[in-house]
Amino acid sequence: MSLLLKNASIITCDETGTVIEDGALGIRDGLIDYLGKYENELHKKYDRVIELKQKTIMPGFVNAHNHAAMTLLRNYADDMKLMDWLFNKIFPLEDRLTEEGAYWGSSLAMLEMIKGGTTSYCDMYMFMDKTAEAAAQCGIKASLGRGLQGESGDDMDYRISEALELYRSFHKGSDGRIRVNLAPHSVYTCSPAYLEKVARVAREIQASVQIHLSETGDEVTNCVEKYGMSPVKLADKAGLLNERTIAAHCVAVDDEDMEILREREVNVVHNPGSNMKLASGISPVKTMADMGINIALGTDGASSNNNLDMLEEIRTASYLQKVISKDPTALPVDQVLKMATVNGAKALGFENTGVIREGMAADLIVINTQKPWYYPRYNTKSAIVYSGNSSDVEYVIIDGRLIMEKGEIITMDEERILYEVQKIAERMSSI
Amino acid sequence: MSLLLKNASIITCDETGTVIEDGALGIRDGLIDYLGKYENELHKKYDRVIELKQKTIMPGFVNAHNHAAMTLLRNYADDMKLMDWLFNKIFPLEDRLTEEGAYWGSSLAMLEMIKGGTTSYCDMYMFMDKTAEAAAQCGIKASLGRGLQGESGDDMDYRISEALELYRSFHKGSDGRIRVNLAPHSVYTCSPAYLEKVARVAREIQASVQIHLSETGDEVTNCVEKYGMSPVKLADKAGLLNERTIAAHCVAVDDEDMEILREREVNVVHNPGSNMKLASGISPVKTMADMGINIALGTDGASSNNNLDMLEEIRTASYLQKVISKDPTALPVDQVLKMATVNGAKALGFENTGVIREGMAADLIVINTQKPWYYPRYNTKSAIVYSGNSSDVEYVIIDGRLIMEKGEIITMDEERILYEVQKIAERMSSI
Repeated sequence: MSLLLKNASIITCDETGTVIEDGALGIRDGLIDYLGKYENELHKKYDRVIELKQKTIMPGFVNAHNHAAMTLLRNYADDMKLMDWLFNKIFPLEDRLTEEGAYWGSSLAMLEMIKGGTTSYCDMYMFMDKTAEAAAQCGIKASLGRGLQGESGDDMDYRISEALELYRSFHKGSDGRIRVNLAPHSVYTCSPAYLEKVARVAREIQASVQIHLSETGDEVTNCVEKYGMSPVKLADKAGLLNERTIAAHCVAVDDEDMEILREREVNVVHNPGSNMKLASGISPVKTMADMGINIALGTDGASSNNNLDMLEEIRTASYLQKVISKDPTALPVDQVLKMATVNGAKALGFENTGVIREGMAADLIVINTQKPWYYPRYNTKSAIVYSGNSSDVEYVIIDGRLIMEKGEIITMDEERILYEVQKIAERMSSI
Repeated sequence: MSLLLKNASIITCDETGTVIEDGALGIRDGLIDYLGKYENELHKKYDRVIELKQKTIMPGFVNAHNHAAMTLLRNYADDMKLMDWLFNKIFPLEDRLTEEGAYWGSSLAMLEMIKGGTTSYCDMYMFMDKTAEAAAQCGIKASLGRGLQGESGDDMDYRISEALELYRSFHKGSDGRIRVNLAPHSVYTCSPAYLEKVARVAREIQASVQIHLSETGDEVTNCVEKYGMSPVKLADKAGLLNERTIAAHCVAVDDEDMEILREREVNVVHNPGSNMKLASGISPVKTMADMGINIALGTDGASSNNNLDMLEEIRTASYLQKVISKDPTALPVDQVLKMATVNGAKALGFENTGVIREGMAADLIVINTQKPWYYPRYNTKSAIVYSGNSSDVEYVIIDGRLIMEKGEIITMDEERILYEVQKIAERMSSI
């Protein structure tokens, strides 16, 4: 079905930061086939026309770091020291995670992401075939990786086999809706030999690699003590760092680390909400962005955030860099919007999304800007970035397919998901 | 009309942090007259019963620092250096503010605050009789102060006269819905003699005093250069600091300053969103709270925030203190909830609000927690603080009066307010 959206403000997130007022956007065969002012009789070329007066179209958000099924652990334990939280709360509960739990937990995350305007996301966790199943059903774009941990040796290779199995089953390349990446968890849960092996396999199949990198000062201290070098250097030595690498966090990075990230064209994913809540530290993203490193944005999992709200993450990213760099011009509107859209698409390897332009995939959202917090209307982009609320997302379109319409999810059974998740959470937490 | 709310989770924000599950709350003559489990035939005692299954009742938020009419300047200019922003953008526009603008701008702010669950707030600005008029009409509780600036001398006393006129016209004491405070803007816009005069007048009528205090490092540096002491010490020397004082920001305070604030029992209002966006710095609120200082929360005006979302402010306050103190246990759930409710009520001098308890004013909100981001339900307070969205506020009740029902504002004409504000903003910004 071809579709024409009309009379909206259109934030393109393109190079020039263009906003088209009273714009029209045509969709055909999953792609944007018209962008501009409404012209006479344009509506006759489309099967359906949606009137969007007082509303704003923009590219869907790309949540570049998440662990979808961890919604199951959301609000189970907060305000705790990291190791106490992990060992006494999170790990025991994760131990009880089943395939069924992963499916419903992932579905809950996708439901929340779509409602908040996310059209593509990146994941690393267990039971990823179940997450892939949920993604295939609901229509979200996803880059999925089975979390890899271990020393080297045959007994630890089963996770890599699982990852490759996932790759064969679901990877559809940059044109497809689901991509599969290789996801070594971190330098503190994978031996150097294991990291090297993962790098080798990734190179062979030209897969993206994602890894948690320099998330905390402790990670760096321990890595230097054990291996005599920083996590970034260790990952580089293992051959893991290149333009297909997605490095989450990069909080505790020094000048040499950042130079390596730049040189290798690594994609860095900033997760300000998680870094703040867990007291991990503050990533120097302004510095890295100024160096030309591609910075994307992510929420991290819901148990360390505790929601998957990209609009909140955008604002937090900007405000945090402003206050920490003592510069109110840091991470201005256009820059954070790109971090949350086109930069994320690049990081995940989706080549035709993140920008509104003719020929690109029709991955977009419609925000109802007829609300008090968007008034007065001096600047639509500022209004969304600094005043907006994710609950105002009314339409979500992915590859030209209507996933949400007037706030109602079309591809998922919301009530069922909440019911199943609650049942599973009660089972997991009772004992 | 008496009213019974039933089958809700009730977050009391009392000393013990109690949450009543499947609770009932009765309202009569503006006060809470029943709190507990639903008992047989309880509904017969009330004129109206509202069923709130899967919903959560909590005290309304107290936004303890705001400049309501500054919504008119929202998103007019962002991502700028402070002085450039103030002198080239904000001041020229403020110069064109009229009484009519103040009325509609204040109405917009109140509309937004009520929709997001704020039931009481504090204001300092111009044309405050118009703001008082808007507050009287819409039903919000307010402590209002005419912003005072100047040297000493008869020619500068007209603002104090205006403030006293406002006091006589609108101040109703801690039992009434509108209170009037005396509001010297800051130590850099008022001379010491002027501050002393305001302190004297405030003492005579036992009024609250609000002031911007130590908002930035520059303010402190300039004050020390000019007067040989910090803003806190200068304000104290002028006799401005006591238990009725509301000190906004307190970002750049040292140990001696904090000790003075503690000793004088000053109420400090933390505005993390504004402090971050304007790159003012990070207030040591955890330290001050640990010292026993009463810390309230505010959004500041919409042109430096850029919204009036207290739930966002709560989360930002907690996350910012966690990351900056490198301690994920900093400002835990119960503490930030109190900052946003009962501490704010104390700061503003409203003695019977901020806590849900029999005998207190029925100032409360209902949040629809049947949304993906509140699932699974392990902990209702955590869910609201760390995952919640202000758009989920469905009911707002102030002094027992229904101000919002099922998301619809009863006491204001939302469409009219947006229309008038837009018209005024276009007039102010055109030239």
